[in-house]
Parts: sequence; C-alpha cells; structure tokens
Amino acid sequence: MPPLHEVAHLGHVELLTPVPEQSLEFFTRFLGMTESGREGDSVFLRAWDDYEQTTVKLTAAATSGVGRTNLRAAGPEALQRLVARVEATGRGAGWRDGDPGYGPTYVFTEPDGHEMGLYWESQWWTPPAGLAPALKNQAQARTPHGVPVRRLDHVNYLGAEVAPNRDYVRDTLGALVTEQIVLDDGTVAGSWTTFTNKGYDVVWTRDRTGSSGRLHHLAFATDTREDVLRAADLALDSGVFIETGPHKHAIQQTFFLYVYEPGGNRVELCNAGARLVLAPDWQPVDWTEAERAKGQAWGLQTIPSFHTHGTPPVPGPEAP
Amino acid sequence: MPPLHEVAHLGHVELLTPVPEQSLEFFTRFLGMTESGREGDSVFLRAWDDYEQTTVKLTAAATSGVGRTNLRAAGPEALQRLVARVEATGRGAGWRDGDPGYGPTYVFTEPDGHEMGLYWESQWWTPPAGLAPALKNQAQARTPHGVPVRRLDHVNYLGAEVAPNRDYVRDTLGALVTEQIVLDDGTVAGSWTTFTNKGYDVVWTRDRTGSSGRLHHLAFATDTREDVLRAADLALDSGVFIETGPHKHAIQQTFFLYVYEPGGNRVELCNAGARLVLAPDWQPVDWTEAERAKGQAWGLQTIPSFHTHGTPPVPGPEAP
Amino acid sequence: MPPLHEVAHLGHVELLTPVPEQSLEFFTRFLGMTESGREGDSVFLRAWDDYEQTTVKLTAAATSGVGRTNLRAAGPEALQRLVARVEATGRGAGWRDGDPGYGPTYVFTEPDGHEMGLYWESQWWTPPAGLAPALKNQAQARTPHGVPVRRLDHVNYLGAEVAPNRDYVRDTLGALVTEQIVLDDGTVAGSWTTFTNKGYDVVWTRDRTGSSGRLHHLAFATDTREDVLRAADLALDSGVFIETGPHKHAIQQTFFLYVYEPGGNRVELCNAGARLVLAPDWQPVDWTEAERAKGQAWGLQTIPSFHTHGTPPVPGPEAP
Amino acid sequence: MPPLHEVAHLGHVELLTPVPEQSLEFFTRFLGMTESGREGDSVFLRAWDDYEQTTVKLTAAATSGVGRTNLRAAGPEALQRLVARVEATGRGAGWRDGDPGYGPTYVFTEPDGHEMGLYWESQWWTPPAGLAPALKNQAQARTPHGVPVRRLDHVNYLGAEVAPNRDYVRDTLGALVTEQIVLDDGTVAGSWTTFTNKGYDVVWTRDRTGSSGRLHHLAFATDTREDVLRAADLALDSGVFIETGPHKHAIQQTFFLYVYEPGGNRVELCNAGARLVLAPDWQPVDWTEAERAKGQAWGLQTIPSFHTHGTPPVPGPEAP
Repeated sequence: MPPLHEVAHLGHVELLTPVPEQSLEFFTRFLGMTESGREGDSVFLRAWDDYEQTTVKLTAAATSGVGRTNLRAAGPEALQRLVARVEATGRGAGWRDGDPGYGPTYVFTEPDGHEMGLYWESQWWTPPAGLAPALKNQAQARTPHGVPVRRLDHVNYLGAEVAPNRDYVRDTLGALVTEQIVLDDGTVAGSWTTFTNKGYDVVWTRDRTGSSGRLHHLAFATDTREDVLRAADLALDSGVFIETGPHKHAIQQTFFLYVYEPGGNRVELCNAGARLVLAPDWQPVDWTEAERAKGQAWGLQTIPSFHTHGTPPVPGPEAP
Repeated sequence: MPPLHEVAHLGHVELLTPVPEQSLEFFTRFLGMTESGREGDSVFLRAWDDYEQTTVKLTAAATSGVGRTNLRAAGPEALQRLVARVEATGRGAGWRDGDPGYGPTYVFTEPDGHEMGLYWESQWWTPPAGLAPALKNQAQARTPHGVPVRRLDHVNYLGAEVAPNRDYVRDTLGALVTEQIVLDDGTVAGSWTTFTNKGYDVVWTRDRTGSSGRLHHLAFATDTREDVLRAADLALDSGVFIETGPHKHAIQQTFFLYVYEPGGNRVELCNAGARLVLAPDWQPVDWTEAERAKGQAWGLQTIPSFHTHGTPPVPGPEAP
Repeated sequence: MPPLHEVAHLGHVELLTPVPEQSLEFFTRFLGMTESGREGDSVFLRAWDDYEQTTVKLTAAATSGVGRTNLRAAGPEALQRLVARVEATGRGAGWRDGDPGYGPTYVFTEPDGHEMGLYWESQWWTPPAGLAPALKNQAQARTPHGVPVRRLDHVNYLGAEVAPNRDYVRDTLGALVTEQIVLDDGTVAGSWTTFTNKGYDVVWTRDRTGSSGRLHHLAFATDTREDVLRAADLALDSGVFIETGPHKHAIQQTFFLYVYEPGGNRVELCNAGARLVLAPDWQPVDWTEAERAKGQAWGLQTIPSFHTHGTPPVPGPEAP
Repeated sequence: MPPLHEVAHLGHVELLTPVPEQSLEFFTRFLGMTESGREGDSVFLRAWDDYEQTTVKLTAAATSGVGRTNLRAAGPEALQRLVARVEATGRGAGWRDGDPGYGPTYVFTEPDGHEMGLYWESQWWTPPAGLAPALKNQAQARTPHGVPVRRLDHVNYLGAEVAPNRDYVRDTLGALVTEQIVLDDGTVAGSWTTFTNKGYDVVWTRDRTGSSGRLHHLAFATDTREDVLRAADLALDSGVFIETGPHKHAIQQTFFLYVYEPGGNRVELCNAGARLVLAPDWQPVDWTEAERAKGQAWGLQTIPSFHTHGTPPVPGPEAP
C-alpha cells in the first residue's frame, strides 16, 4: 500500500532530561539550535531550516526519555480522517492545546505506549532580525556555531515488540514501511517507516530489556556528510561523548554519528546524501541476521551499547 | 493547495541528439550511466540508483532537444484520475505503449507544447550479475567511473510563457509551486514545481527567443556536492564543456555545475544537500528582478548564455 | 636551484586596519581566530592549529594594508646565514625585539618595499584550559564557531614590479619559484614562491596602479574544501562581503573564496587538497596571457576588482 | 635536530605479490593508477599527480611483502653526503642501476632489514596524449575511474624493534621524528618519521610476531577525505576487502581507509586535510598505552587484525 500522504511529515518531538541546563547547553552550543520560547519546565528549540516554531521541546523531568512526538497532517480534512481512524483503534486520548505556535493536537499512543500527536494548524517561524537569512527560501540564518543541525530527521523508539507498532502507523496513519530487520525466527526486530520521500521518519527497534515506551535516539539532519565529520571533531574537542561513528549504516545507507546528550538521551547526526524513496510501490527491504552480522555498510561492527542503551534507563542489567 | 500526490515522481525523459554516438559516450563515460536497452533509434540509460528501467531515453534525431517527459502516477486509480483531468483540458493525445519495462502511457502536451506522459505500471530494474549492488537497498552497484550520477533530478523547460504551464501542472496534475521569478511588470519568468519532497521536479523558464517546446536543461543528482566538484575536475580533464559553476543557486539553493553534452543539450549536475520541501502549506517564494540582480547565492553573476542557449537551436541571434 | 630550507616557513603577518574593532570582530567571530594577546594598538590572533603564539598581528592604523611579514628560520645558524645575505644586499634595517613570544627579529624590505622579518626563537603556544585540544598533536581545540581557519597559508603582495622581488626571495632567502604569469612581452606579472612543500608561501602580483608596498590578500587554510563552501554560506548569512568564489584557481589549483574584512583588506580562505610540491628540481610553471584568458580552473572569469582592489587604497581611478 | 632536507621525499616503492594479475587489476581499476612500463616480472604504476615515472613497482613474487623503498635526494651533493653517511654505518650494499626513468641508486638496508635506495637523477613523467592534463601544473589527467589516488603518501614497515630504525633514519638520513607510541615500559612500539612537511613518510610499528622486514601497509593520498568515503563505497560494490575505516587516526590525525589488495598486502587510502608539520623544532609527540586505549580519534577501537596482519605472512599463530 502506498503512503496515504495524510501525514505530511514528522513535527517536533519532546525530549525529557533530568539535567535541563546541561542539556540546553548541548542543544544550543553543540548542536547549534536556537531557542524559540519557554513554557513551564520546557524550552523550545529550533534547527535552522525547520519552518515551524519548534524542532525539539526540551522538558525538565525526573528522568530521561521521549515525550510526545508530533505529526503534521497534510491539511484539515486529512487531520479529521487521521483522527477518525485513530479513534476507531481505541488508542486516542483526545484533543489538547498545541504547544505555542501550534493548533489543536489530537493525542494518542501507539501500541508500545509512546505518546504521539496529530495537528494541522502551525504558525510558520518568523526569525527575529538577528536571525534573518540572506536567502528568502530559508527559514532562518544558519547558526554560526556548533554543528549546526539543519532539521529534525527522525525518531527511533525502542519497543517491547516492533511489529504491532509498524502495523499501527502503516494501517492507521498511512506510513510506508521501507526497511526491516527480520530475525531467523520471523520476529521483526526493527522497522523503518516514512510519511515522506525520506527513507524513514519513525523507527522502532526491539527493546532487549523488554521495556515499553523508551527512546533509542532522536536524529537531526546535517546539510552534508562533511558536517557529520566536523561534528565528530567538534564533539571530541567539546567533551561530547561519542558512542559510535562516523560511519554509514547498511540499513537506509545513512551516514551517521551517535552522541549522548548530558541527560543521557542518544542523539544521532545523520545525512542521507541524495537518497530518496520515490517509488510508490516500494516493498520493505528485509535484512536477515546473516546480513546484519556483516556489520554496518563498510563493515563496522555495531557496538554493544547500541543494543542496550535506551532512555529512560531501566533497572537491572541491560543484557546484550 | 497542497500537492495531490497523484503523480509520484518524475520518470524517465527522452533526449534528442544529432550526434548519438558522441552523446552516448558522454552519458556512459562521463556521467557514468549504464545502458539498459536499445530500441529503434534510442538507447536507454540508467543512473545507478534509479529503481526503474530507464533514466534517459537517448534518441538520435535531426536536432537536439527534449522528447517526452514521463511522470509516474502514485497508483492505478491515481493514474485514472490524472488522465481524466488531462482529457478534460483537451490536451490529451491518447494512450501509447510504454517504453520497454513500462506499461501503457497516456500522452499529452502542456500549454507550451512539451510532450509528457503518465503511467503507473513499471517493471523494477534487476541488475545483471556484474552490476549487483553490495547492499540490497540500492538499485545497482555504483558505477566505478565517471561522475557518476545517482538519479534523475529534474527537467527545466523553456517556454514562450511560463504561467500557463505552471497553472496546468498545478491544477491538472496537482503539482506544488515552490519558487518563482516574478518580473517587475508581473510576468512570471520562471516557475519551479514539484510532485515530491524535492524542491522541484519540473521547471519552466521564459524562452527569450519566444520559441515554444525547447529545453533549458536536464538535471541529474549526484550523491554529494563534493561529487559536483569532482565532476568539474573530470569535465576539465575530459574535454567536456563547462558552461558555469560549480556554485550554488539562490533559487532552491541547489549546488550546481552546467555542462553541454555533445548534442548541444545542457546538462546540470546538482546536489540539494539535506534540503526538502516538507510543508504542505508551502507558499511560492517569489524572486524579484532586484533580488535576481544579486546573482547566485554567493554572488556569481548568471552568464549570458544561460539566458540564450536552449535546444534545439533556433534561427537568428539568441538575444540576451 | 632547490629551496635552501633556511627559511622554515611563513610566520605571523601584521595587518593594518582603520576600523580595528570591526576587523577584530571579523577575525574572531567569522574566521574563528583566538585572541592571544594585546600590545599597544595591536591585537594578536591565532588560527587553531598554528603552533606559535600568533598568526595575525592586527594593528589599528590610519589606513588598511600589510605591515611586517615574518619568516621563521630553520635554526639559529640558518638565521645567521640569512641575515648575512640580506645585509649584503643593503636592504637590512637591523634587529628588533620580536613580538610577544618571539625572539629577536631582523627586519628588512624586499625591493618593492614590503617589510619582512627573520627570526628563530619562538615560544610555542600553550593553550589555556578552555582551549586545550583533545588530541595532543594539535595546537589548540578547534574553534566551535566561525569558519574556523586552521593556519596561515600565504601572503600575496602587490608590487610595482614582480621580477625583482621574486629574484630577491629566491636568491637571498632561498625560496623556490613554483609558478608565474609571464605576459606576451616577457613581463612577469605574478610569481608564486615557497619555502616549504606547500605550493606557495609568498606571492607577488603586479600592481596595475604602479604603487609599491600594497597588499593583494592574506590567506588562511581551512581544513577541507568543504569548509570553504561552508564559509561562503556563513559569509552570506553574516553579511561578510564575498568578492569571488568559491572556485578553483588554475594557478596552483587552490580552492578559494575571497572576502573583504571590514578594514578593506582582502582575505582568502583556501584549500589545496592533497597537493604538495615535493620535487627538488621543480621548474617554474609559466602561464601565458592566452592561458590566463581561459579563466580559473573551471572557467570562472577573474572579476575586474581582483585586478584593481588592493590595500591601502590609492588615489585616482583603479584602472583595470 | 631539524630535518636535514637532504632527502627530498619518498620515491617509488616496490610491492611483491603472488597474484600479479589480480594485484594489477586492483591497482589500475580500483586505485585508478596508470601503467607506465614493464620490465621483467614488474609492472610500473603511477598515481595521477606523482611527477616521476613510477609510484609503485609491482613485482610478481613467491609471496607478498615490500621490496625496495626509494628515497629521492635533494640534489647531487645531498646524495653524496647521504651515501657517505650510509656507508659509514656499514649498511650499504652499493650502487645499482635505477628503475626505468631513474638514475643510479645506492642500495642499503635499515636495521630491521628493509631494503631502501637513494637516488638523485629522475626523468619527469611526460604523459602520452590521452593522459595529458588540462592544467599544466599537474602531472597527468586525473584517472576517470577508480578512487583515484593522487600520490604516494607513506610506507609503514613492521619491525622486530622500532627504535633502532627510527634512530637510523633520523641520524643517518636526517629524518624528523614526529610522533611515537611509547609503552609503559619505555619500549617504542611505533615511530613516524618525515623528510618533508607531511607528518610522516616512513613509519615503523612493532611486529608482534617478532619477524623482520615485513610490511604493515603502503599508503596513497586521495585529494580529499570525501574521496576516502567514496573509495569505501567503491570497495563495497567492487568486492575489495575493507579491513577498517573510514575513520580518523588519533596519531597524525589522518583520515583513513584500510583495504587488502589481492596479493594480501594492506593498502591505506589517506587524507591529512590541511595538516602540515612546519615547525623546525618539532618535538616527537609520544602516545602512552593509556592514550592509545582510547581508540582512534573519534573512539573507534583498533581491530585485532591491525596488530597481527603483515606481509609476507609468517608461520604460526599471529598472536594479538
């Protein structure tokens, strides 16, 4: 089934942190994001070429993890159709006021329990004088420091199971499933889904601790893969913890770097090159255990923490 | 109006050349494209990551220029709806057999007279053994020589007028108009339209000779902008004529290099970085004469031939 | 004659500016240089991987232009031999105290009147805690904002005549002449000379105003050519004036971007790729007028201001 | 002691292979090197911007490994002084005819037994018509296929001991020791030495098998680090074995990719960015075991085979 195009794209994501000041420093100084507002325990942050008000809602909390992931509908009617289908699944939690700059948001959870929101109304970002871009087809001037990240790219959830969530976004929201990890026993251990021509917007990978609702990572696109390499140098000289990379994923062929922000959440800097998924009849590419054993695209073995570290942390040993 | 998503993406484009052998050499050796078949006076050529059979249909002809531009529908029903709307405009020419690997194609012309085709059925490319990719989410092994180009990016037509064609693809095919050049007298001198999350798929710019049906250029995406720089070095050492670039366009911010293939057609190598048009309520960005006078993004003045050279050549002076 | 290797490399260069605060802002915020000290009307500035105290001595003055260019000798005996040869030419002005961090400096002028200095003693830079690099083989942490420039690359003087200066550095200082512009009448209009394996350290090009002692530009090396492209974007969004580029020079094949700092001095950001001049019997590559007429490497025509703008400005029309 | 500059640079290196046809295919098709001649069991191969006749002398042999490494003297007198010093060490083997295009070569071995040669006379490469470069300051047109490598970069020997070889090239040939690995017990386990402004030309690392005369790898410089990334993609689709990388070394900060050529010899593709060692009073940077335990620059752990694989292979287990 081709994507329905009722969800236009991934909107802003809420990230929780137990060390809000240090996390804010990471997002503004290292990632080069711009603060666009504050409300309660939250700071709103923008990547320089996202057109809406907010890319990340950074919220002080008792622990780390992911809050609500918002999805923008393609129009008001598309929003109504989406909400109707969600309601029919019994997973809806009702309408909420949107974050500043956003209209009413319909909140629900996917089967693993991650909170998601659907909205249509969105007030485009108007940069203040000092952040006005030189070219009018750009949301804001590029940040002259830090990475800087260009736009939100994707969210990668951990889930106790993968398949039910994949089915939910595919069948209820009209996502396209582009790639998957399918174990020898048939278990789907990872699923990459998209609402756009990007290879993926929302990903589920299996949580080996059996927990629900956790975050594997939140990813931001840099303008070039050279920016990912520069980010690695910058991380090195800035004391930002590099978990793995830069290297290129076999799945989706994304050039990547994984770091941890001070709150413990894993953040990916990524660049897809010119890769797009344009085919309306794209079939999921299934990767076997044997294929995964070859490592990443150029052979890098996936490091153990990639299979164990998620946020919030869970008690007990994080078994590999 | 948001894009209808009934056209999934730009399909293959037919290019005409009076020197077919030399043009073929350019496409295979310099651009690094792969021959996927021959039929009559035509050779079918592929960029390494296009998933269908053909990226360019290179056809021997009395002169240069562009033949049919094909558009893939998002599904069989979408195709029917598109054809019905085209028929209603009186511009339809009826169904034709598709090129090898493609199903029935409905042929029509836009108001300026360029031939276009709509199709749904498409047989995915299966690379022969020597061209099999190492990673299964890639259409074919990267060509180890030449640029090589990754995929078709866009076609830029010349038109006696721009606005009628823009309106046609917007209203009949559901394209999104992303950027425009609007002269001080209100004339639309250029219009960039898209069916995807790319900034543009089909472009019209005003033909200063007043002719209809001509080609400004055909563009291919490289994987990185570094590939565009490498292509410039390769062009230099290969005797390929460089018209202008590498530089970055102000409009759409594409990193570009323009060369001429031996048949006289202008070919662009381009890279958009991580830029995507994701907003469903994107409004056309209009560029004024004063803004255009600033040159390209970093100040390069547009060279005169860019305003005069089109294919096929037209008699008389190509006035600036 | 191979290079004598008595001059080890180009040391720090003094730049004059009538708007010192604005120039300082340019060097620190846009170029990403670090202040390492102040003395009198001067601020000392460092590129992140230069190992000595200073890369540029920025001095407030009535007008723009270049002050002293310093050259580090390869050792104390080499310094004595160099000074003896300079004294024998009658161009020596005697020993001076070095700038902070530098030992005694022997000052002289080349035939066109530019002031130069020779020194051996140099106190290596020890970064303060906040600027300590993560890797011990690096002078200082990379600046997390601005371009940032890695090291001083070269100085390009304007001279009423070129040949006498070329002969002077070749015969007195042991430089290697690597490339030249030789006009049809035999006049040498440009000469690139080096003391290292870089293609050039000190360059003279003919001053079409007939003036002496002026500066064409001062150049800094970025780590990659991608950094030059990023610098162009940063200049665009920061309001820094771009004169020309990015493009690649035919001469020396350097990837370049030229901007003006607020004081009016032209500054080049450059990257040579992996190019080195290793041959001890390298013969000067002479470029003819016809070859120069082809433009830069990929065909960009040299813009008129490149032939007229120098600092300090001179009265009267700057004729092309 | 500063470098004496009597050795101008690393000349061509002889590589031995038991599968000469497959190795030749690797060097020409994958690395993009050009054949410049044949003699006996050897094929001479060039990187596109090396100015001499030969970059690698590929010789069919019973096993893999490295033959003679040649060093070009800075002039005829420098050659005589070098030879006199070598003779005084008792390690000289006398004068031999040079390879085609090279003058008389004085042959000797360093303490670990690797054969080296010193020469001055060298006939510059004149490319045949089809390989003429567009720009006259370039040795040859860039190869339009394969990586292609720009020039020889360095040779990395394995040695039963490191220090004696380091002392030999430093004291007898005037090399500069730039970086070292010094174990906790004071053993020097690696030493990087240079004759140029490059960070290193000849390297010794400790052979954990206790053997003498083996090769760790031969390295070629690509023009950019993007070329290293492209090479990884090309290796992947070409079936070339990737051992590790791309990543960045902590030592010397070189961006690297290691592959094996079909004969078993390890080949590095590397790019140093704009890094140069310019200081005449550079002191060796010593890396401790604790510092090495941090992995490469961005944290990649050195893979076990990097410590065990050398050529020719030696009997018995290659213990880590």
